[in-house]
Amino acid sequence: MADLKAKFLEVYAVLKKELLEDPAFEFSDDSRQWVERMLDYNVPGGKLNRGLSVIDSYKLLKEGKELTEEEIFLASALGWCIEWLQAYFLVLDDIMDSSHTRRGQPCWFRLPKVGLIAVNDGVLLRNHIPRILKNHFRGKPYYVDLLDLFNEVEFQTASGQMIDLITTLQGEKDLSKYTLSLHRRIVQYKTAYYSFYLPVACALLMAGEDIEHVDVKHILVEMGTYFQVQDDYLDCFGNPETIGKIGTDIEDFKCSWLVVKALEICNGEQKKLLEENYGKPDPANVTKVKALYHEIDLQGVFAEYESKSYTKLTTSIEAHPSKAVQAVLKSFLGKIYKRQK
Amino acid sequence: MADLKAKFLEVYAVLKKELLEDPAFEFSDDSRQWVERMLDYNVPGGKLNRGLSVIDSYKLLKEGKELTEEEIFLASALGWCIEWLQAYFLVLDDIMDSSHTRRGQPCWFRLPKVGLIAVNDGVLLRNHIPRILKNHFRGKPYYVDLLDLFNEVEFQTASGQMIDLITTLQGEKDLSKYTLSLHRRIVQYKTAYYSFYLPVACALLMAGEDIEHVDVKHILVEMGTYFQVQDDYLDCFGNPETIGKIGTDIEDFKCSWLVVKALEICNGEQKKLLEENYGKPDPANVTKVKALYHEIDLQGVFAEYESKSYTKLTTSIEAHPSKAVQAVLKSFLGKIYKRQK
Repeated sequence: MADLKAKFLEVYAVLKKELLEDPAFEFSDDSRQWVERMLDYNVPGGKLNRGLSVIDSYKLLKEGKELTEEEIFLASALGWCIEWLQAYFLVLDDIMDSSHTRRGQPCWFRLPKVGLIAVNDGVLLRNHIPRILKNHFRGKPYYVDLLDLFNEVEFQTASGQMIDLITTLQGEKDLSKYTLSLHRRIVQYKTAYYSFYLPVACALLMAGEDIEHVDVKHILVEMGTYFQVQDDYLDCFGNPETIGKIGTDIEDFKCSWLVVKALEICNGEQKKLLEENYGKPDPANVTKVKALYHEIDLQGVFAEYESKSYTKLTTSIEAHPSKAVQAVLKSFLGKIYKRQK
Repeated sequence: MADLKAKFLEVYAVLKKELLEDPAFEFSDDSRQWVERMLDYNVPGGKLNRGLSVIDSYKLLKEGKELTEEEIFLASALGWCIEWLQAYFLVLDDIMDSSHTRRGQPCWFRLPKVGLIAVNDGVLLRNHIPRILKNHFRGKPYYVDLLDLFNEVEFQTASGQMIDLITTLQGEKDLSKYTLSLHRRIVQYKTAYYSFYLPVACALLMAGEDIEHVDVKHILVEMGTYFQVQDDYLDCFGNPETIGKIGTDIEDFKCSWLVVKALEICNGEQKKLLEENYGKPDPANVTKVKALYHEIDLQGVFAEYESKSYTKLTTSIEAHPSKAVQAVLKSFLGKIYKRQK
């Protein structure tokens, strides 16, 4: 596993080098340095789960056959394309949310020399994906499917981001907009497609499968939704030391699964308390919201949701005709079930 | 011509409708309205020269044969993809430049309800291009070439924007960075590829030509550079009533062809005057710069550049093996030679 990650990081170095020598553009020293610094700052610093899962999935699809060096390289390159996509979204999201830190360092646009140039850097990150794909997959029979896949998933992610942004804008302190259906749509489009469906779809294409026929999208989107509900839960009930940050969803008026569920369960009086205290920066307000969450036993409600989701997902997975695909899906589920961080 | 534009605008309505009903995303009424308003505000309000020139070029490549309704529709759709690309760049550029107005109305991000959501709207505009291409070109033999073309040109444009941004940042009031070679690189990548090469390359692909073999890129990039030099010239010497705006390149410390040429021609004393007065908002400083431009006869230098460029371009065009391609290139050149706006 440590070995796999080291190999994966070696591929990053190769891809970066190619991008910094791209013949489609005449770099000067200044601009080459800028791009290199921007890439190193924004691309490889995360947990790399999405990228690594392309290799994992591809291995499982190959049912234990030893992968060639070329296969490992190509699966890693696709994994990195997803990490590049993620970096692009994060750089731009941080600007839109006026965030301060990301992965334990200041957001890229917060650096004094960067500022709003970060908007164009986000665009560059996005543009690197088709460069990587062209460099390494142009001759493959699935090249056009890869382009279509990345385009469609990016479109869905940007659309999910849009509903998230306009809900926060229009819903300004109006909790009545926060429903389970809205929560599901935001999570599904903004997170699930690119984090869960995309890595597996990449692996399937590389393995020569037609992703329109191998129906895994539905299951992976469900899994991605479950993953985000866990995220919402851990933001409030997780151990800050384990999850590595202090949650602020309540202060930030986030359309979290917890508030959506609470609104569903609450009586009139409790709803009033939520409306008066949700989305305010004062710790006293936050404490009242958390007390209410305990009162209506949201932890119990979540435990029930978690076990039901697990059963449902397992049933769906076992109904899939391919044992190899089942193994991929089960591996994903195993990694996230009852996670504490 | 008026008829062509009316037809072109009809295609916009069709494409917009398809995007607002895209099955890859579940729109709510709110989000559908948001996208529609955003498109109408940002996409069709320009001169539409780039988009219309795809149809013009395709007609010339077909050497007078009457186009079918389908051909007109497809050429228009590609033209609109270029207009969408332009809208995407402009929405984001305006944010990065803190601009106030665009095409006679406030910049999109200046609208009170929009703000930095405009970053994601720019991303959405960009994402619409592959949706349009997939809807109408997925089955065509040149589909993958179209995707590659749009990806490469977008990459070049973003790279040109990068050198423009980091030059202004690093060159902060340091004129020594402003050279003819830097000016050419910015113009070539930031403007010429998408404004001149892209429309013709789209028309060539539709006509079944292999754009890697039909060498027109070089000529069109030269023409695009000439076009931008005219732009720089008109910013200072054009009639504000004719060009529809009051130029501020001098105040804004722009890497304009004029200042680059001036630096090349000036003696030590004149250079000092430039350094002291270029890039300052005070009209007194601007007047001094303009007086210097007259003193060294930049208008004469430009007139010579213009006539030399014309001769050189004409020679290159006439050396092209295809008469139909020659006609396309001459039509472009004819439209911009000695333009006053």
